[in-house]
Amino acid sequence: MVHEKDLALLVDLYELAMAQAYWAEGMHDTAVFSLFFRELPESRNFMLACGQQQVATVIETLKFSREHIKRLESLDRFQPGFLEWLGKFRFSGHIRAVPEGTPLFPQEPLLEIEAPIAEAQILESLVMNYVHLETVLASKAVRVKLAAGDRPVVDFGMRRMHGMDAAHRSARAFRLAGLAGTSNVLAGLDFGLTVSGTMAHSFVQAYSDEMDAFRVYARLYPGTTLLVDTYDTRRAVRRIAEWLKQDPEARVSAIRLDSGDLVAESRDCRAILDEAGLEDIRIMASGGQDEYEIARLTAADAPIDGFGVGTAIGVSNDAPALELAYKLTEYAGQPRMKNSSGKQSLPGAKQVFRQHAPDGQMRGDVIGGREEVFDGEPLLSPVMKHGVVLLDAIHSPDDQAHYAMAAIRALPPELRELAPAGRFPVIISRYLKALQADTLRRMQRGLSSS
Amino acid sequence: MVHEKDLALLVDLYELAMAQAYWAEGMHDTAVFSLFFRELPESRNFMLACGQQQVATVIETLKFSREHIKRLESLDRFQPGFLEWLGKFRFSGHIRAVPEGTPLFPQEPLLEIEAPIAEAQILESLVMNYVHLETVLASKAVRVKLAAGDRPVVDFGMRRMHGMDAAHRSARAFRLAGLAGTSNVLAGLDFGLTVSGTMAHSFVQAYSDEMDAFRVYARLYPGTTLLVDTYDTRRAVRRIAEWLKQDPEARVSAIRLDSGDLVAESRDCRAILDEAGLEDIRIMASGGQDEYEIARLTAADAPIDGFGVGTAIGVSNDAPALELAYKLTEYAGQPRMKNSSGKQSLPGAKQVFRQHAPDGQMRGDVIGGREEVFDGEPLLSPVMKHGVVLLDAIHSPDDQAHYAMAAIRALPPELRELAPAGRFPVIISRYLKALQADTLRRMQRGLSSS
Repeated sequence: MVHEKDLALLVDLYELAMAQAYWAEGMHDTAVFSLFFRELPESRNFMLACGQQQVATVIETLKFSREHIKRLESLDRFQPGFLEWLGKFRFSGHIRAVPEGTPLFPQEPLLEIEAPIAEAQILESLVMNYVHLETVLASKAVRVKLAAGDRPVVDFGMRRMHGMDAAHRSARAFRLAGLAGTSNVLAGLDFGLTVSGTMAHSFVQAYSDEMDAFRVYARLYPGTTLLVDTYDTRRAVRRIAEWLKQDPEARVSAIRLDSGDLVAESRDCRAILDEAGLEDIRIMASGGQDEYEIARLTAADAPIDGFGVGTAIGVSNDAPALELAYKLTEYAGQPRMKNSSGKQSLPGAKQVFRQHAPDGQMRGDVIGGREEVFDGEPLLSPVMKHGVVLLDAIHSPDDQAHYAMAAIRALPPELRELAPAGRFPVIISRYLKALQADTLRRMQRGLSSS
Repeated sequence: MVHEKDLALLVDLYELAMAQAYWAEGMHDTAVFSLFFRELPESRNFMLACGQQQVATVIETLKFSREHIKRLESLDRFQPGFLEWLGKFRFSGHIRAVPEGTPLFPQEPLLEIEAPIAEAQILESLVMNYVHLETVLASKAVRVKLAAGDRPVVDFGMRRMHGMDAAHRSARAFRLAGLAGTSNVLAGLDFGLTVSGTMAHSFVQAYSDEMDAFRVYARLYPGTTLLVDTYDTRRAVRRIAEWLKQDPEARVSAIRLDSGDLVAESRDCRAILDEAGLEDIRIMASGGQDEYEIARLTAADAPIDGFGVGTAIGVSNDAPALELAYKLTEYAGQPRMKNSSGKQSLPGAKQVFRQHAPDGQMRGDVIGGREEVFDGEPLLSPVMKHGVVLLDAIHSPDDQAHYAMAAIRALPPELRELAPAGRFPVIISRYLKALQADTLRRMQRGLSSS
């Protein structure tokens, strides 16, 4: 597995190649890079920005060790002077970002980095990888949570997440998105989340009678959840009901259904339990759950009290990637933009102003220049100055979850639905539009004069 | 980021809970767990098994440190005796696996673990996470390579992969799948892969005239690739052609197109270059490439000489997850199986025999019991014995790539196509079927007698 100490080498070669070119050319002026996405995935009405504060703490300690420099030498591409520069590299710039848990729309910066151009360029893949993962997963998980309403959703996704780093960091992103806990022990301990888990089919199978497995678990873990679908769900629940009626010492909180027709099975199980006076025993559902399945179960009024969700949130299966872009928007005080077919970008450092109606509902956003002032709440604020993370920019997952929940509640109701909604109104300021037109003209002049 | 030393805690809570129950009940008998997938994703004709040897090397050194034990104590779920057992845990079992780079089909084990049941149970999520990631990504990348044919494909996916561990391990999986190199510096150095990279749009934008950016790069990196679509592709290529005609010292190997109508643009660029006598300069394409786009460009005879592929292979965008299952198939010498609705499994330890026609083409597979013998090549072989990785089970990425390439060449031609093909013939042995029927009968007797 990759070591944290090697993070600096987790860089795309071209970033180091460009940095050497800037170094060789003496180009040390300040650049502004902006991280944003061009379009929402079809099945998303907003993205929940996540990972910006996390990556700032990583950048703060990023450095190339002597061993890294030696390994880079072996690539036969880098000059001694540049490798010396790299050995002394510590990020010295500023980062402004929207708070983690902010719903965002196309063209709105998640963060902006302002630093000598080589420093900002080196961070490209690291910043994108960090923010992409957490934003993609949180944006899926929040849909699952919206579908589940007040019923708790627990993350069971570790086994199908893409690698160990994803399995770890995702749990924090899911907390921001409103999930109640995780099955992942390390992530739970590291981020202060509720760790939960029941039993696997293998445990039931290891006994010749599944009731033995249930009895052992209830004795060892009073208040446990029993997995009832290994052989015959209804039969298992009937036998559990009989046992619990006869043994008032046994404490079972819930049963878990992991397969089959969950509407019919949850109803039958509920009826069996209620008939036995076991109204307190909850029914949990897992196995292929996602926001659509949860909405279907809810619409059918299935008596399910909570959900374990794995693959759908673990890989954001319907939208595993976001077209996140990290673009140069200013260099040496001059606005910069790209004019590639279908990928035109907005020049200049920016601010996003979020405007609310008197009842608190979000009405629209304005994307303006960094120095402009509009009505509304400015979303981007400093997270790092001169390479040092600002302490008041770091918040606990619980605080971030509360912030996110409030922000999501303020979304127009149709954006909180699972179905595709109309576009949220985002206005580009006149200044930015004029700057774009002007930059384009200057670029065309530059092209035609040469 | 997660530390390698903490890998043992990257476990789902239920695995530790079940292990404690086995410990408390004195259940130390040998279990066999089998890792397989139930169905192919719709857009896959086979999966390329990958990650099995890698995870064995991780399991070999897996242990719970004193600090881990202290942190587990804080969960208030574990007894001192069990934590002591956990502190002494070293995996003592055996692992058999198919070679990395083997094309596999539903129900065929990628690996089987044989160990005291608690030891094998603890590994569940770790084994699944490791093998899932690499198998999913290699199985996508091999499609891209099949579409590209002899033209090199380079991995540009780091920025959109799910976390740093995925960004690192994927590069090795892609090498197995036939890719020519990676942009990821650390992965390239660690796995001995070709590291490559060009320039970003930001580099072009940092200069007021893009020709200055091109000249700097060609001087610093003779034989470089120039990114030509930042403003006006054809104009950029015309100016490059003029420059190179006038300056025979300048060495440029290729241009890269990253947007636009790649059929039209590659033809126009080829014509401009050829007219200037620059037939040697290759044309690379990137930007939203996947196997379908590459097939489309190939069908249109677009003069493209190589591809940089990012998102599609980085997250396996059309099939980011595989329904991989890790199931108990034997305990204390008795076959075990699950009978959940739609998820019935095959009991017992297994072997897969791959049968070839005289011309070398794969004809069919037989899944049999571990002790059965059939015609054909047995695919599962020991990778670890008594907790120690067998040295002759570890191969270099290049050797694995050659193995995979030969195996893929032997696939029936329709399975190498992008379109969904018919099912590859996989037969379950009579013995396994009888064992399944028998196990089912015993389970039903067990249920009805209680």
